[in-house]
Parts: sequence; structure tokens; C-alpha cells
Amino acid sequence: MITAIVLIKTSVDRIPEIAESIAALENVSEVYSVTGTYDLIALVRVNRHENLADIIPGRISKIPGVKATDTHVAFRTYSQHDLEAAFAIGLDA
Amino acid sequence: MITAIVLIKTSVDRIPEIAESIAALENVSEVYSVTGTYDLIALVRVNRHENLADIIPGRISKIPGVKATDTHVAFRTYSQHDLEAAFAIGLDA
Amino acid sequence: MITAIVLIKTSVDRIPEIAESIAALENVSEVYSVTGTYDLIALVRVNRHENLADIIPGRISKIPGVKATDTHVAFRTYSQHDLEAAFAIGLDA
Amino acid sequence: MITAIVLIKTSVDRIPEIAESIAALENVSEVYSVTGTYDLIALVRVNRHENLADIIPGRISKIPGVKATDTHVAFRTYSQHDLEAAFAIGLDA
Amino acid sequence: MITAIVLIKTSVDRIPEIAESIAALENVSEVYSVTGTYDLIALVRVNRHENLADIIPGRISKIPGVKATDTHVAFRTYSQHDLEAAFAIGLDA
Amino acid sequence: MITAIVLIKTSVDRIPEIAESIAALENVSEVYSVTGTYDLIALVRVNRHENLADIIPGRISKIPGVKATDTHVAFRTYSQHDLEAAFAIGLDA
Amino acid sequence: MITAIVLIKTSVDRIPEIAESIAALENVSEVYSVTGTYDLIALVRVNRHENLADIIPGRISKIPGVKATDTHVAFRTYSQHDLEAAFAIGLDA
Amino acid sequence: MITAIVLIKTSVDRIPEIAESIAALENVSEVYSVTGTYDLIALVRVNRHENLADIIPGRISKIPGVKATDTHVAFRTYSQHDLEAAFAIGLDA
Amino acid sequence: MITAIVLIKTSVDRIPEIAESIAALENVSEVYSVTGTYDLIALVRVNRHENLADIIPGRISKIPGVKATDTHVAFRTYSQHDLEAAFAIGLDA
Amino acid sequence: MITAIVLIKTSVDRIPEIAESIAALENVSEVYSVTGTYDLIALVRVNRHENLADIIPGRISKIPGVKATDTHVAFRTYSQHDLEAAFAIGLDA
Repeated sequence: MITAIVLIKTSVDRIPEIAESIAALENVSEVYSVTGTYDLIALVRVNRHENLADIIPGRISKIPGVKATDTHVAFRTYSQHDLEAAFAIGLDA
Repeated sequence: MITAIVLIKTSVDRIPEIAESIAALENVSEVYSVTGTYDLIALVRVNRHENLADIIPGRISKIPGVKATDTHVAFRTYSQHDLEAAFAIGLDA
Repeated sequence: MITAIVLIKTSVDRIPEIAESIAALENVSEVYSVTGTYDLIALVRVNRHENLADIIPGRISKIPGVKATDTHVAFRTYSQHDLEAAFAIGLDA
Repeated sequence: MITAIVLIKTSVDRIPEIAESIAALENVSEVYSVTGTYDLIALVRVNRHENLADIIPGRISKIPGVKATDTHVAFRTYSQHDLEAAFAIGLDA
Repeated sequence: MITAIVLIKTSVDRIPEIAESIAALENVSEVYSVTGTYDLIALVRVNRHENLADIIPGRISKIPGVKATDTHVAFRTYSQHDLEAAFAIGLDA
Repeated sequence: MITAIVLIKTSVDRIPEIAESIAALENVSEVYSVTGTYDLIALVRVNRHENLADIIPGRISKIPGVKATDTHVAFRTYSQHDLEAAFAIGLDA
Repeated sequence: MITAIVLIKTSVDRIPEIAESIAALENVSEVYSVTGTYDLIALVRVNRHENLADIIPGRISKIPGVKATDTHVAFRTYSQHDLEAAFAIGLDA
Repeated sequence: MITAIVLIKTSVDRIPEIAESIAALENVSEVYSVTGTYDLIALVRVNRHENLADIIPGRISKIPGVKATDTHVAFRTYSQHDLEAAFAIGLDA
Repeated sequence: MITAIVLIKTSVDRIPEIAESIAALENVSEVYSVTGTYDLIALVRVNRHENLADIIPGRISKIPGVKATDTHVAFRTYSQHDLEAAFAIGLDA
Repeated sequence: MITAIVLIKTSVDRIPEIAESIAALENVSEVYSVTGTYDLIALVRVNRHENLADIIPGRISKIPGVKATDTHVAFRTYSQHDLEAAFAIGLDA
């Protein structure tokens, strides 16, 4: 499983609504409205590297109100949890 | 459950080792070595707001090789998954 | 009591008026027009973490003229004063 | 009463200890360890503008472990609370 | 006498005209069009801290063409000159 | 008269002492310890452009504890005051 | 062969389409949609320094949707591969 | 001779045209379209400090398509060449 | 084939030597010493996402003199060239 | 003739001395100590692109006291002057 952490700036007055739209996308496991200079942080989890292009520049960036994205792709994951199992549901791509 | 996304800068030549130390801490659900201007991103998940102080400035910041942290605390979580269940194991605090 | 310090950029020519609107919001204990690269700094004080979402992205960000917010949530408070007592009035949430 | 909001960067591994030292200073009403790119935020409240120099560059900046300060002085305060009364205790300067 | 140094960004094609408008304001002792990333630097000199709010967010920020201000208030003044005398004229506030 | 506004970063724990050293230099009319991300702001006033080199990179930058300077030279001055007269004393260079 | 690496910001909702337009230009050997604060990175390879002006400010910057470019020209190339041969095809300029 | 190096940001799609307009101005000795985060760099050479105000905020900033300028005025010049002679032609101001 | 563009800051006085060390690493197809605020740009090309971790935080970051890396991983590649063929040699991982 | 404008940060207390060392280098036509966040700006003029590598990362970066360089290479030159003639002397490379 490949994980990407996407820091997102949105129109300042539609943060909760845009969070809902992104969370509804396939392969988006979580979206948080957050403190700090970014408005949202989304976690995208895919099985194949190529699928990141469809989800991030392909869909997240095209949602009305998204002004900029800064994606950090995981080189490697370190966890006490079995994340694969935790997020097995819904990870078609 | 309260989630905090912690962007971390470390000594440039000990990234994997520091990731292991942070991932071993209680309430740290995942640590990723990542692309971009940060070296690691950790997800901290707690049940009570007060516990963030013990884990982030209290422990993560004190791990040798951690040079700076930029924490984004979630106001609200949006997800198709039952994250509470997925991360129920190991969340004492 | 959980405290959040919100750094706010507004339209440059309506600073005092926007400060009044924010100060009138529930759980906003103080708003300052300030020197430096931000225009206003608001202090939000709530009893439960979940209420921050309603007040900051939910209301402050939606006030006309607010262009960006950068929220710093307190991990822990250090004070010689009994802040809880000082701000007990009006903290329903 | 004149209020100054001081954003502070400290040595990353001594945040709680430095917070205690600053909170013990006269005219410092509150210190928070916070999320984001700063480590602490202190609120300084004085009766006369001249006293800011003694407290901020004069004392806070000289505490071992303080690496940089960014002070925002309030032009004007907007609040539903009687802050003067709330912080009357201990404001000699 | 309290001095504030205000760094100002203006519309790039009306720098001299905006400088004239600001220099005409009460308590503005000097305005310079300058090199660097700012367009103008104004020096505001008042007798009471409260008057800064009327002049900077109250008037300078409201002049058409002013896009952003970054104010640095003096904690303390160090000079071989008797600045009070030099700027005694016209300092009603 | 040519004016330069010099924004100065110093060692965080010797701000007042360094201000004194700079204010004692010839052609430095005022030095302020200030709020914001800079520690000091100095105003240098000379009669000939060539003298700026001796004072700023030549002397201010060489004072122990000065870490960085960002100089903004005035293109033109706008003022209701007769600044030439106000600062006539002591401007040999 | 002279290589230039061009970091490109585009309209956030037309990243793939703009990548196609740039990749079709002569002397553009590769275009990547990428993670991080830039949207695209293009590699331009020419035989003569003068040709960079036609391709980068002359054509890439003029493609609708390109908002900013930050070009890094190679001083020297270090590679185990024979890049000249690899990119011989199509390098008229 | 006083030299100013002016870093200029322009509309991204009219870089060559704007360069021509600036190069035609009196006392502008050279204009370069350049790599990096700026679009143009102009060298302005004058005999008297006061003339910088007419050329930079007075004319360069007013050319349509110029979005921002960051001027660096030379304190002192170090060169093996006799720059005065090299640029003697056309330096009326 | 997955491509990563790694922007690298090095000790300012050993740029060519560090470029040689990085270029000798497996899966590093090209290294350029470049203009701009970065010192080197390396292109890493691998067949499987997991191999990026070994090469970038695992080896490049550990080369003496490398001070920071900012990696941009390609979502998708757009090119008139058959890059796979051009870089087929030497891509074991 | 290819021109590169090199923005240079140096040790803050040895600006004039470092300027002399750089100006003595072959193909460096001018060095200025300047206002603003950089300390020096050097103009390098060469006949062949390859020579930039020897002069900038090869020599300027290796001068003791040079802390960072940000080079902007000219795509194209626009000037009323015959710069080639003006700088013909001494341009061996």
C-alpha cells in the first residue's frame, strides 16, 4: 500500500463543504480540517503508484474551491498497527 | 478520537532510524518518511486533548535528531472508514 | 479549558470592523488588532476540543473580509492566573 | 492595559521547561505550548508602553533556550469580557 | 514619544502618489519610497499608545492603493539626537 | 540628505547592548528595539551616497552580535517636517 | 548539450492538460506532474545556450494556464548514462 | 556612478516585450530575461542618488505588466574594468 | 518506471565532488550542478515505488556534505521520447 | 557573451574583503556590495556556457566566507550599449 499525505489550501469560507467532497473520493481514507497555514489534510492510500495521478492532480485538484495542493508521498511506513488490514476496505485501485 | 498530523525535520542522515523511534511511542499510529521539504510525517491519535502535550512536545520533540516539528491538529475528521475501530488497539491515553 | 490562538489576515481596509464581528462570536474571549504581518489575533477558549471546528473554520473563516487564518492550538497552559475563573463567564460550549 | 502576543521559538527538546520560566516572569499573564511552526505563545500585559522593553527583549529573550521571538503588540482590544478586571491581579508595571 | 516603523506594500504603479497621501496624515513624521521588497516605509510618532490604532489600521491601511502593512513598534529608542525636540512640532495625539 | 532604514537581526539575548553600540556610530540618527521578526531598526542619514558603504557593511555589520542586516535605501523622502534641519547636527559624512 | 530543469506552477485544475501542451514543444525532453509545491517539472535540452530563451520565456511561459516558472540551468552534468545519445533524437536547436 | 540592480517580476506571458520597454529607458544600461524566480534583472546606472527615484518607482514600476520590483542599490563597486568609461555613453542623469 | 526529481542543498564549497558521489549511486540517472537556490538536482529512476526509500533517505541523504533534500515524485510522465528505453541500462531495482 | 547574475550571502562581518577576492577572479566583470537581504551581487560574463561551472560552483562558492549563492543566468540580453565591446577586455574563457 502506498500512502500520500496531501496538504490542501481551499477557499477560506467553504472548508467543511470541500472536506466532504474530497472524503467521498475513492482511495481517500481520511480528510481532516486542521490548524495551521493549510486548511485540510487528506490521506490517500493506493495499491499502485500510477493511481496517485488519477486521484490527486486528476480529481482532488479539480474540486471547486481547492486553491493549491502540496503532496508528500511516503517512501516507507513505520507503524505498530497493521495499516493494510485497517484500510483494506474500499481500496480497489 | 483527536488526530494530530506532525510534520517533522530531522538530521538529514538518520531519517529511517528516527522514524523507528517515533513509531514505537504510544499513541503514534503511523510514521512516514516522505518526499518534500519535511523528512517525516507522524499521525498521533489520542482520546483526550491534554494527552497531545505529553506525546508531541513531551516525547517526539525530545528524540535525538528531531530538529523541528510543525503540528496540525484536526478540528474535524471526514472519512468513509470507521477510524475509531481501525485504531482502537493500543489507544490507552 | 482548551485555548486556540488564531492569527488572521483580513482585507486591509476593514480591520476594525472585522475585529468587532469576530469579538461578538461565542467562545471568542479577546480579539486584538496587531502590529506585524497579521492584522488580527483572536483567542478562542472552549471546554471541548470538538467545538473548535464550529468556531474557527465554521464561523470565523466565514466572516466577510477574513482572507486567511493560521490557528495555533495550545497543548498546555502555563500561568500564575486562574484563567478558568477569569474566563468562566460565557463559555457555554 | 497594553497587550503583546509574543510568538517564541525555543530549543526543540526543552519546550515545557522554558514555558515554566517565562510564565514565572512579572506581567506575563499566560504562556501556551502550541501547534504550528512556533513552540510557545506568551501574552504580556502591561500598563505603560515603556515596560514592554524590560519584559520582552529585556527578559524573555534572555532566557536560555529562547532562539527567536516575534512580538505582535495590540493596537486595540475587542472583547465581551472585562479583561482589565480579569488580569488586574499582579500587574504592577 | 512612541515610534512605529510601518513597512508598506502598494500598487506597483502609484508609489509616489500614495507616499504623498500618507505623509499628509497627522503624526506621520516621514515617508520614504525605498529599495527592496517593500515600496514605502513610514515613521509614525505618537505620545500615547492608543493613538497608533487610529493612524495605522484606522487611516494608513484605508488609503486606496495600500495593499499590506507590516508595523514594527519601538520598545525603546537609542539616539544621540533629542528626537522629542526634533519632532515636537505637530505631534498633537 | 540620503536616508537608509536598516533592519537588523542580532543575537537574541543581547538586543539592548547591541542597540547602544550602533546608536553611538556616526551618521546613525536613531536605533529602535522593535516588535516583529527583526530585533533592531536603525536610521542612517548621510550627505553622500558613498558614505553608506563605510557605515553599513563597513561598521554596523562588523559589530559583534549582529547576525544579518537588510537595508532599504530611500529613493525619495516625503515629510511635513524639515528633516534636514532636524538632523543637521552631527552629519559630518 | 545544455539541460534546464523548469519548475512550473499552473492553474490547479488543468495540470494534466498543460503537461501535454508543454511536452509537445520542441526540445522539451520530459514533463512530469509532481508532488510538492510545484505542479509540473519539465526538462529542456538544447545544443546552444541562446535557444533556452525561445523555449522557456518564449514558449513555455506563454502557454495558457502557466502561472509561474522557476528555471534551474545546469552548470555541469554528471551521469553514468550517455545522455547525449539517449536524447539525440529531436534535438534540432 | 551609482548602480542599482533591479529584480523584476512581470506577467508571465509578456517577458520579452516588457524587457524591450525597460531597456529603452534612459539610464538603464542592461536588462536580462533570467532563470530563477524573477523574470527580468535590470541594471540602472546614474550619476546622482536622486535620479534613482525617477527611473525605478517613477518609470520602471509604471510599465504595464511589471508586477513587483526588488531593488538592490550598490554601496560600493569592485571591478577590474573601468565601468565608468564602459558606460559613459548615454548617462545624462 | 517511476521518476523522482531530488533538489539538493550541499556544503557550498564541495558541490562538484558531492555531485560525483551521488551520480555513482545505482538508479541515479543524472545529476546536475545548477543555478538558483539549490546546488544540485538529481533524477532517480526506479521500477518499484519501494526502492525510492533505499536510494533517497537511505543513500543520497547520508552522503557527507548533503544538507537537505526536497524530493518531487512524478505522478505521471509526458514525453515524445521512449524514456524507458533511453534509461533501460542499469535499472536493476 | 553569456551573463550570469550571482546573488551572494557572506559572513556578515567580512563583506568588503570577500568582494575584493571575487572581483579578482577571471570573467567576473563587476561585484557590488548591496542593500537588501543579499550581501554581494557579482556579474560573470563568459563566451561559452561550460565556463560558468568553473567560475561559480568551481571558484566563487569555494572562497572562504561565501555562505550561499543564487545564480540567475541570462536567457537574453536587451541593451542600448554594445556590452560585448564594453567587456571585451579580459574575457579569455
